[in-house]
Amino acid sequence: MASKRSDIDPFRAMDVLAEANRMIARGDRVLSLAVGQPAAPVPQVARDAARSMLDHGRIAYTDALGRQDLRERIARHYADAYGQTVDAAQIMITTGSSAGFNLTFLAAFDPGDKIALAAPGYPAYRNILRALGLVPVEIEVDRTTGYILTAEHLRAAHEEHRLAGVLIASPANPTGTVTPRDELRRLVEYADAEDIRFVSDEIYHGLAYGRAEATALEFSDRPIIVNSFSKYYCMTGWRIGWLILPNALLRAAERIGQSLYISAPELSQFAATAVFDAAAELDVVRDGYVKNRDLIARRLPQLGFRDIAPIDGAFYAYAAIPEGESGATQFAADILQRCHVAITPGTDFDTRRGENFVRLSYACDHATLAEALDRIADRRTG
Amino acid sequence: MASKRSDIDPFRAMDVLAEANRMIARGDRVLSLAVGQPAAPVPQVARDAARSMLDHGRIAYTDALGRQDLRERIARHYADAYGQTVDAAQIMITTGSSAGFNLTFLAAFDPGDKIALAAPGYPAYRNILRALGLVPVEIEVDRTTGYILTAEHLRAAHEEHRLAGVLIASPANPTGTVTPRDELRRLVEYADAEDIRFVSDEIYHGLAYGRAEATALEFSDRPIIVNSFSKYYCMTGWRIGWLILPNALLRAAERIGQSLYISAPELSQFAATAVFDAAAELDVVRDGYVKNRDLIARRLPQLGFRDIAPIDGAFYAYAAIPEGESGATQFAADILQRCHVAITPGTDFDTRRGENFVRLSYACDHATLAEALDRIADRRTG
Repeated sequence: MASKRSDIDPFRAMDVLAEANRMIARGDRVLSLAVGQPAAPVPQVARDAARSMLDHGRIAYTDALGRQDLRERIARHYADAYGQTVDAAQIMITTGSSAGFNLTFLAAFDPGDKIALAAPGYPAYRNILRALGLVPVEIEVDRTTGYILTAEHLRAAHEEHRLAGVLIASPANPTGTVTPRDELRRLVEYADAEDIRFVSDEIYHGLAYGRAEATALEFSDRPIIVNSFSKYYCMTGWRIGWLILPNALLRAAERIGQSLYISAPELSQFAATAVFDAAAELDVVRDGYVKNRDLIARRLPQLGFRDIAPIDGAFYAYAAIPEGESGATQFAADILQRCHVAITPGTDFDTRRGENFVRLSYACDHATLAEALDRIADRRTG
Repeated sequence: MASKRSDIDPFRAMDVLAEANRMIARGDRVLSLAVGQPAAPVPQVARDAARSMLDHGRIAYTDALGRQDLRERIARHYADAYGQTVDAAQIMITTGSSAGFNLTFLAAFDPGDKIALAAPGYPAYRNILRALGLVPVEIEVDRTTGYILTAEHLRAAHEEHRLAGVLIASPANPTGTVTPRDELRRLVEYADAEDIRFVSDEIYHGLAYGRAEATALEFSDRPIIVNSFSKYYCMTGWRIGWLILPNALLRAAERIGQSLYISAPELSQFAATAVFDAAAELDVVRDGYVKNRDLIARRLPQLGFRDIAPIDGAFYAYAAIPEGESGATQFAADILQRCHVAITPGTDFDTRRGENFVRLSYACDHATLAEALDRIADRRTG
């Protein structure tokens, strides 16, 4: 009865979230390391902006490309943060990066086109591509390259598959790894030379620990940049993000956006314009992730986790499950039921090898992380 | 450079909105009858709910199906408004009806499937279907059936095209016509008998003047119901709506929603839960539309508009342009530039015949409507 194309994988982190919410509704005290969601509230300036719009109550459709003040503010951010000149006219406001990916895939690719992705990687890439009739070409990365998809990987995949596109996330989900600037340049230059459309997921920018982040725009004006206010800016539930589009795709994305989304939520657009002024508050949140990262990097090996990907950015640890566990699906289900700690099985991120891995998000507050790790430790010894 | 499938029509009302916004930014006083957007602010109780959530600032991803309190409140609404029993488990909260249509089309139909629609009709149906590889079968309706798509229309289209689905909106956009209960029953029963998936767009429920509205659920549990808080509830810019799904499609829609949307904006979900308590305030807004409808029904013939569709519901008038005008595109552009009044050319709604029609939204306040009609009158005599 359902369509064939709806037969995609679930986003298992969302299934875990739904199950955790059912347990919480029954009175269980569940600690969640499952979803990539900051525990910190949205900064005060953004809330004040939203309140001022609630006072007059006129919260309306905006242009499909978004409010002009937000587009201009984002353009200024590229000058401030990267020294890059971006024209506000190339910026499209989206209903989170989710809409950004959907719009990108529809505007840039036709059914049957092949798009390279790193495995492990964010499952929604693969799921959206499949639902839209596109073919994900998953390139397995591992410790030998620090979990980085390299230009050599891309060349080998292109020679085998004739790619239409490639999608790179740095910092990456679920591994937290950061692609070094020179490697990113090589990837973009190879893609441009071979007419492979480069999609750069920069949603975890602002959350790299120790390495400077590069935007793909530094190397070429042909990549599509996908970004969002969900992570560094702590605005997950507001569903607000942006695209930077090359001129050739701008009107196509606008046309699709008009009919598929009309516009992004206006209250979120207005609050996002203000949130750029909250750097001090957001850097405190970021410092909390650094503290959490130190804790999780120290505790995971003690708890028997292995093969831990370099935790260079974002707020995830991706690790092989302890020896003796029967598999990640069972391990995660057991920890949820017995310890009331929600984590995500690696099958979300890596179809072939994921049953041996789990992802833990450390975007929660420090006490929650410490208690969650203690509960997992108690299960091992208890 | 852009994909072939992105070569869909623009949503011209959105292009008009963008042009009007550019004119307003330059200082012009543009009156908009272009977009289906209530001028009234969102009711106070919904704003108060949003404020209470801003106080704690934890605005997060929800389950992909939506917050349980909102799903239960909507289920109760079906008991109150229609005497229908709906299980909250069948309700999926969506990012406006836009997401509802996208999820419906992806979950229920595969590329090449043919879906019947009335022409004139809401352009996003046709545009989303095309972007997703589906084939809109447009059934032209006219004065002979009061602009209603009937079961006889559906039978003829099915015999010619072998339909996979049909989408009916009542009250309809752009005509404002209401499908009588018995006709809706015949349509649903014919679709069920022929295994045609029935999609019922009920977004203008609450805005029928003189006729009681029927939900397709009264006749069968197989239709997909698409609804939204944008129109009667005055929450356009909040991007919040809902689906009621038959069991066979529920998990498919949830899986796609997890990856394509994650979840609808939580602040909007919370405010929408409260807005059901604002019936008194919303009925005052509705009474304003009745007053506007009387004015526009009286003035349009005086201004030379012809062939006006029965204005039974929603907040639109759809009418042939006055004799002597060269076409709707030119007419609408001229009125925008010379009178600073935004209206939408019929080409948005009817590919073949639309160049002879325009749509005027009367969801604005009464004084705005009166002045806009005066400005159009002055152009004729001036």
